[in-house]
Amino acid sequence: MDYYSSHISKLIEELSRLPGIGNKTAQRLAFHIINMPVDHVSSLSQAIENAKQNVKYCKECMTLTDKELCPICSSQERNKKLIMVVENTRDLAAYEKTEKYKGLYHVLHGAISPMLGIGPTDIKLKELMIRLQKDVDEVIIATNSSLEGEATAMYISKLIKPAGIKVTRIASGIPVGGDLEFVDEVTLLRAFEHRVEL
Amino acid sequence: MDYYSSHISKLIEELSRLPGIGNKTAQRLAFHIINMPVDHVSSLSQAIENAKQNVKYCKECMTLTDKELCPICSSQERNKKLIMVVENTRDLAAYEKTEKYKGLYHVLHGAISPMLGIGPTDIKLKELMIRLQKDVDEVIIATNSSLEGEATAMYISKLIKPAGIKVTRIASGIPVGGDLEFVDEVTLLRAFEHRVEL
Repeated sequence: MDYYSSHISKLIEELSRLPGIGNKTAQRLAFHIINMPVDHVSSLSQAIENAKQNVKYCKECMTLTDKELCPICSSQERNKKLIMVVENTRDLAAYEKTEKYKGLYHVLHGAISPMLGIGPTDIKLKELMIRLQKDVDEVIIATNSSLEGEATAMYISKLIKPAGIKVTRIASGIPVGGDLEFVDEVTLLRAFEHRVEL
Repeated sequence: MDYYSSHISKLIEELSRLPGIGNKTAQRLAFHIINMPVDHVSSLSQAIENAKQNVKYCKECMTLTDKELCPICSSQERNKKLIMVVENTRDLAAYEKTEKYKGLYHVLHGAISPMLGIGPTDIKLKELMIRLQKDVDEVIIATNSSLEGEATAMYISKLIKPAGIKVTRIASGIPVGGDLEFVDEVTLLRAFEHRVEL
């Protein structure tokens, strides 16, 4: 159908390739973009190009950054003997927002998932093992509490423990402010098992 | 916070300006874009630029097109004495998908909304009046069934009728396949009032 200009159709097609964006949303976004001021539009397309061209992995922690070493790895104020392992850069950002964690990170860019054919060599695990040859006190595994996240945590723990490095896992339980009524049974049981003395 | 590369932050900021895209979705999209193949990324940013630069209003019906005259207005197979007035190009596309309507369109690019400060001069109404100086049999008003859409329909109808042109409004009622149980009262009443003899 050519009731849209070919340029609009192309834009809708490109936008609907993005995750979570269906055809209807892509149409809405496309018409919004066409009605945006010219400088906003070029600012958007430039941001897309720049992000792709200039973002690379930090050579230490594998997070996405535009320098050789990310701001966290190059900071003098962080405890370099503490490494928190996360699945992706968004999880790193989530912990950074707490402003309490002062160690370093290691970004795996995924989790082990036999279902999706993602094995230990498909995530940044080798890079973690190389880092552990330096003086590290503790590795905190902060992968998601999903099946894949738990499997990855177990795998890493078995890999690291023989080297005599302390390995911990972030706690799972009832979310703070959470209503027990709406919490699933597995979480309720986990919270019960991991109860702490007051 | 600079735990993201400035290029990533910029991309997230640009994406979250789009309608219906909050900060979380913008982050998800940004990381997806960074992980996309280079040619997909440039194809996306090019589509954005091209759509903005090459798309303009059809000089007749005001729809968005890349030619002087849109494919519908330049077609010889359409009934040029029938004009359907719609709020935007997506509504035009929705009617085109039915493949039954063979007249022309007029795209208002909005609806009258005193609440949002959008008056009759802010939509493409003047352009419609100019078109009506030619030989037109009927104007079908297909603005949305919202408060703004109805107000716009009333306004246009009062404007056109004195010129002796037939003005109609698309029917409102129960959607086909719709369950009465889930239809709001105003629609139920409208469907009752506009009942047709069998």
